[in-house]
Amino acid sequence: MTENEKIRTMVMIYGEQYTISGTETTEHMQQVASLVDTKMREIHSVNPNLNTSSLAVLTAVNTIHEYIKLQEKYDKLVEEFKQLKD
Amino acid sequence: MTENEKIRTMVMIYGEQYTISGTETTEHMQQVASLVDTKMREIHSVNPNLNTSSLAVLTAVNTIHEYIKLQEKYDKLVEEFKQLKD
Repeated sequence: MTENEKIRTMVMIYGEQYTISGTETTEHMQQVASLVDTKMREIHSVNPNLNTSSLAVLTAVNTIHEYIKLQEKYDKLVEEFKQLKD
Repeated sequence: MTENEKIRTMVMIYGEQYTISGTETTEHMQQVASLVDTKMREIHSVNPNLNTSSLAVLTAVNTIHEYIKLQEKYDKLVEEFKQLKD
């Protein structure tokens, strides 16, 4: 896919507009944006004094933490899968 | 684990210090912080005009996108796993 074929999607996250470009559908990107927005609002409700920048950084921290945990679960399942096939 | 038993870890992300508390080890949280820092710097190198807040929001967007993709892979593997066991 060339640069011209990329889909550009406008999304709103925590009151700010962002343009995201990629090969995914607009629906997928809206879903992703909505999840980031929700996470930022959750962290804000627990830490109302954080500014937007810190909220966004902590949202990224939280998300990468969850990604690593899922990756560990995935790797474990791949191992079990291999053993079952052998 | 009670609130008192939570581990508090000081991390540096994109030049700012954050305190993260959770049940994970300090090493895990340092790894997470380092990944967020790296992703923010990658996005900055492509979009040098973005401020810290936008960089962090786009880092979260990017990570949630990857999380959803991994979740789909995981779900597919679970399905294959079930079929193999039957």
